[in-house]
Amino acid sequence: RVGEDWIFLILLGLLMALVSWVVDFAIAICLQAQKWMYGGLESNVFLQYLAWVTYPVVLITFSAGFTQILAPQAVGSGIPEMKTILRGVVLKEYLTFKTFVAKVIGLTCALGSGMPLGKEGPFVHIASLCAALLSKFMSLFGGIYENESRNIEMLAAACAVGVGCCFAAPIGGVLFSIEVTSTFFAVRNYWRGFFAATFSAFIFRVLAVWNKDEETITALFKTRFRLDFPFDLQELPAFAVIGIASGFGGALFVYLNRLIVQFIRKQKTINKFLMKKRLLYPALVTLLVSTLTFPPGFGQFMAGKLTQKESLVTLLDNRTWAKQGIAEGFDYIGNSQAWNHPQVNVFVTLVLFIVMKFWMSALATTIPVPCGAFMPVFVIGAAFGRLVGESMAAWFPDGIHSDGTIYPIVPGGYAVVGAAALSGAVTHTVSTAVIVFELTGQISHILPVMIAVILANAVAQSLQPSLYDSIIRIKKLPYLPELGWGHHEKYNIRVEDIMIRDVTYITLNCCYRDLHDVLLAGHLKTLALLESKSMILLGSIERAQLQALLSLQLGRPRRLEYLRDRATAEKKRLSMVSHPGSEDGSQRVNQEVRFQVSTVLTTHTELNVTLFEVSHVWSPQYHTELNVTHYEVSHVWSPQYHTKLNVTHYEIAEWEENQLDEQVNFDNCKIDPAPFQLVERTSLHKTHTIFSLLGLDHAYVTSIGRLIGVVSLKEVSDTDHLDVRILCIFRHTFTVNTEAVPLQF
Amino acid sequence: RVGEDWIFLILLGLLMALVSWVVDFAIAICLQAQKWMYGGLESNVFLQYLAWVTYPVVLITFSAGFTQILAPQAVGSGIPEMKTILRGVVLKEYLTFKTFVAKVIGLTCALGSGMPLGKEGPFVHIASLCAALLSKFMSLFGGIYENESRNIEMLAAACAVGVGCCFAAPIGGVLFSIEVTSTFFAVRNYWRGFFAATFSAFIFRVLAVWNKDEETITALFKTRFRLDFPFDLQELPAFAVIGIASGFGGALFVYLNRLIVQFIRKQKTINKFLMKKRLLYPALVTLLVSTLTFPPGFGQFMAGKLTQKESLVTLLDNRTWAKQGIAEGFDYIGNSQAWNHPQVNVFVTLVLFIVMKFWMSALATTIPVPCGAFMPVFVIGAAFGRLVGESMAAWFPDGIHSDGTIYPIVPGGYAVVGAAALSGAVTHTVSTAVIVFELTGQISHILPVMIAVILANAVAQSLQPSLYDSIIRIKKLPYLPELGWGHHEKYNIRVEDIMIRDVTYITLNCCYRDLHDVLLAGHLKTLALLESKSMILLGSIERAQLQALLSLQLGRPRRLEYLRDRATAEKKRLSMVSHPGSEDGSQRVNQEVRFQVSTVLTTHTELNVTLFEVSHVWSPQYHTELNVTHYEVSHVWSPQYHTKLNVTHYEIAEWEENQLDEQVNFDNCKIDPAPFQLVERTSLHKTHTIFSLLGLDHAYVTSIGRLIGVVSLKEVSDTDHLDVRILCIFRHTFTVNTEAVPLQF
Repeated sequence: RVGEDWIFLILLGLLMALVSWVVDFAIAICLQAQKWMYGGLESNVFLQYLAWVTYPVVLITFSAGFTQILAPQAVGSGIPEMKTILRGVVLKEYLTFKTFVAKVIGLTCALGSGMPLGKEGPFVHIASLCAALLSKFMSLFGGIYENESRNIEMLAAACAVGVGCCFAAPIGGVLFSIEVTSTFFAVRNYWRGFFAATFSAFIFRVLAVWNKDEETITALFKTRFRLDFPFDLQELPAFAVIGIASGFGGALFVYLNRLIVQFIRKQKTINKFLMKKRLLYPALVTLLVSTLTFPPGFGQFMAGKLTQKESLVTLLDNRTWAKQGIAEGFDYIGNSQAWNHPQVNVFVTLVLFIVMKFWMSALATTIPVPCGAFMPVFVIGAAFGRLVGESMAAWFPDGIHSDGTIYPIVPGGYAVVGAAALSGAVTHTVSTAVIVFELTGQISHILPVMIAVILANAVAQSLQPSLYDSIIRIKKLPYLPELGWGHHEKYNIRVEDIMIRDVTYITLNCCYRDLHDVLLAGHLKTLALLESKSMILLGSIERAQLQALLSLQLGRPRRLEYLRDRATAEKKRLSMVSHPGSEDGSQRVNQEVRFQVSTVLTTHTELNVTLFEVSHVWSPQYHTELNVTHYEVSHVWSPQYHTKLNVTHYEIAEWEENQLDEQVNFDNCKIDPAPFQLVERTSLHKTHTIFSLLGLDHAYVTSIGRLIGVVSLKEVSDTDHLDVRILCIFRHTFTVNTEAVPLQF
Repeated sequence: RVGEDWIFLILLGLLMALVSWVVDFAIAICLQAQKWMYGGLESNVFLQYLAWVTYPVVLITFSAGFTQILAPQAVGSGIPEMKTILRGVVLKEYLTFKTFVAKVIGLTCALGSGMPLGKEGPFVHIASLCAALLSKFMSLFGGIYENESRNIEMLAAACAVGVGCCFAAPIGGVLFSIEVTSTFFAVRNYWRGFFAATFSAFIFRVLAVWNKDEETITALFKTRFRLDFPFDLQELPAFAVIGIASGFGGALFVYLNRLIVQFIRKQKTINKFLMKKRLLYPALVTLLVSTLTFPPGFGQFMAGKLTQKESLVTLLDNRTWAKQGIAEGFDYIGNSQAWNHPQVNVFVTLVLFIVMKFWMSALATTIPVPCGAFMPVFVIGAAFGRLVGESMAAWFPDGIHSDGTIYPIVPGGYAVVGAAALSGAVTHTVSTAVIVFELTGQISHILPVMIAVILANAVAQSLQPSLYDSIIRIKKLPYLPELGWGHHEKYNIRVEDIMIRDVTYITLNCCYRDLHDVLLAGHLKTLALLESKSMILLGSIERAQLQALLSLQLGRPRRLEYLRDRATAEKKRLSMVSHPGSEDGSQRVNQEVRFQVSTVLTTHTELNVTLFEVSHVWSPQYHTELNVTHYEVSHVWSPQYHTKLNVTHYEIAEWEENQLDEQVNFDNCKIDPAPFQLVERTSLHKTHTIFSLLGLDHAYVTSIGRLIGVVSLKEVSDTDHLDVRILCIFRHTFTVNTEAVPLQF
């Protein structure tokens, strides 16, 4: 019963809750240490600056170096990679223990530095790592059902757990993970995500209670907006404005982030310099960002001394900052004080905060450390919402409602809306709405939040890909991009317009030479098998199967058999010549040969390297080129043996030629009899759907059973025309000349 | 631009919000009228009883009769049917204007009667009807892209709108509709649901504000639980108990509901009697239920005078009903008074309410009127939660928390948890959690709700199918049931174990007689086309295509052509005989024949009914059987024509036999060259996934291209073994004898 899903999910949830809590705890200590250092050096501004700057630079540099050395795969958010993995693509080293360690430690250091980075994306990756490792660990106890589709289901649940335990938001976590990682979602897997994410969020919050941080289980960023009259109908246009502006802002963020990466890549001199000293780029960026946020310096105008969490808490405050009516105003207590500068207005502070954090976050997320962009964007969105809310509050000091009772405007509600809208725009998701409800513990602003998030999504989706899709393109991961909506031409493009007509294939009565040629020429993973005369597609065969067939035909056992036969014949001839009629002698000689052959066999059994693994095929003309092969050849066809048996090199070549000319016997070969087939007239839209649904990477195009082309997922490069020409080239060598082979049954 | 998705979705949302609001308004008036009548007759209990009972009986009977006459498809919830339609099955008459009218009016009357019925399920159906009709309407303006997959996408969005505008719960609506109607969900359609449901919920609530029912947009059943300490960690076991008990309760509800339906069906005498007078059953059930809830009668012990909505509002009250500590207790104001009986305890009232409403709801939902079961179950769940909460409050009068501050227990929170858990158990969904948050406007109880809902689902799913799946089975709708989780055997069953080996097929060089035989023998929609010798599957052809081929071969144009040829030959012979060499005469006669033939052609062009539409094939032995055919035949082969041309019946038969013996020419025939293929070794699990994913109803099983079997969705009956033997019989006539045809290429 160890293999039961629910046990696995509980363990996963428990583990991730612990990881999340420990990481949070470590980050909090790091940030406290920085504050303590900064506070202790108040007498000397220069020393203070040094401490303020050095600390994050050291942490980020360590994080970058550590990740680089241990597992470079741990760099970045991880959501794009998980999206690709859930699509069915195997990415090497992405789900190993090394990566897990690198990601957790790298992330803790990166976030402990106080840079504008997030933990959500990496937590999706960490949870998947956890799931993969746990799965391996539990299979040691046996009983677990090892199955690829089960693994994918578990990884999908793990993504939900990642978001869920990061924000204590089980529902939002499940939905967000579905939106960012899946194209088609099996509703039957839904409960797994909910179960694991709820359990994880529960444990995560219980740990906080046990640690006496909280009295009971509540939301992470609890708000206390009034319930009876959360907002007025007439405030809705302001919320819509936040949504639309956030849409543009989100698209700009994605664009800026990509621009920075591409700029750094293109500048060859900078690039060379930075590549040589891999840690210089992170250090420089950190230096720049932390210098600008130095509280006694420019930081005083942008609440620089607040950590990300503190900023968010203050932004979601349900009191109004801007002075209302007379001069009484709001007395800034605690962290809120950071927003109140004696010289400048709170509006100026907010605008500066938004502008500076915007480019800083876009820049910081390009640093090669484990980090996400969700939280920084969320905070910027909250600040923008707060700005609009404060403006509204200043504009309507007594609220808008006209029915006697005064309901003042709640700028904190605007901050909630802004946070959901901007993060929704950057990630192209609507579930950020649910995440803010779970984060704040209040759902009273549901309609404004939904309206803003939907508008933000509409604007952002029409301008830019999501941040994760943008990273997928930058990293050139093998992912089928979305078709987008509203493009009607996708219904008019047919498979025949985009298919490759030059398909590499083998026929049912081909000879081994054809196999040999096909294997040497291309490097396709699977090959089409056709009926010889009619060109009807019978199935597809994996490359490995064909290699096995070929090595069976030309391999050592058959060579030895040939030698044995030859030797027997030779000896027989010799004995016939020397001692005609002497049965005894013939038998002796025969035994001798057998002994020799078995010696050869025992000598060479340790040479498990079959020749095909070296050169794919072993033919005389190759011997001169490949020294290794020659060496191995001489081992098998050992010279002393040659002389004894009189096997000349010419004879070997002749034998090989004969072997290659034999017809292939496919009897024991695994053939996939139903590779996916499309028709010439299938639309691009349908093709795209089928490819996404079934996770295909190629499909054959047939006409009445006859193979006429192939469409396949382009594996790399050519990112410019991805939208339309999503389906493209494998490298093909042989040609099916469809004109030359008329349809004859 | 009329065809743009977002315009469609806005219109749909607007329309549904209006419908929902008007229906609610009408229901409220109906209920008020009953109260007014009941109140006005307070002097005479008997008259009061008559009024209390007659009113709902009349309304329900009208609803049942109206629905029965106008559109019997409008009966019931509609979610099972929508689930089937979204699966790709076409259900006739389910999406027509008639059904829409019947559903809306029937629902209003049914709910206006005050019976324990809900509006959620029917609203899913109504929204889908709206979408289908709107789609038709908008296509009048042109520009709309008519596409089957687009229609399905729009229907999925409509389901979300239905739930969304019913509860003003956009997020819960989207999730609930996904859970109850889909097996695989395309994330790219997600936004449609959110967009439309949000807009709809917004308008629905704005209408309430404009109508001065509300001051601003808030939740439908707003609660006011305290935010700072919603519940104590030590209360969680009680919430878990609610979840588990709700799981059992939900399963019992589904079982009870099915039992009642089956009981009524099996009892032949009752059944006969009820069927004759179709309206008797609804009237009797309503009489029983309303008699029991009569407030001065038994109703006083179960808050009988409260409507469903009022009950829910009082149950979610955040005050405690049970007396705490000393005698002060809670003063029952307004509707809450109904729960306070002078003689009996509030606990007794609650228990009676739960028990009575439980079977009443299960019974009421079997009445043939448009109605859902969600809301009644929701209320029962809330009552159960309240019961547990009140017990807890009585047990711990000062709350559980031990840290000085007293946080009394909030029984209303328990009611929220109970409502979500029981409705989740009955429908097998977790999104009821989100629905309660949106309904109450508070998310503070998120963890207890999630825990209870998940536990309830785990228990209920292992005991019974969901209510909707249960109805699907009762109604024998063509739906592929879920495989369920944890059954490992599904991985071990292979396609070869369940496939049908007798496949009807046609070969590429078959003659028309074979086509004719195949068409007469079976009634498959598509037929397999095989290569003649090797039995390789080349594709599938639709029945209609084959009929067209056959009618082309034997149809009127060819008959006329044959006659024309014959006539020409005859005339030639005649003219040769009478005026040998006279070119002029021959030409005249020829013209005459042409005239005759063209007369025949013009006479019969109005007879657009091709003969195949009558009898599928037109062969002499049929003439005697089918009078219609004979009539038509005599039209074409008109007697006066026969005599002139000397075409005897025997000759016609001979001609037909010759035609049938010709080889079929598939050149202009639409062949689907890539029907879905499986392999013998494909597991049932994978087959099930592929069938659900692609909405298939059959797939061929091939072995190296050769057809060896077929698996198809069993269309009706045999509900007992649905779990394992999901894939079954088409009716096949011809046999592929796999042993007799060895694999030879």
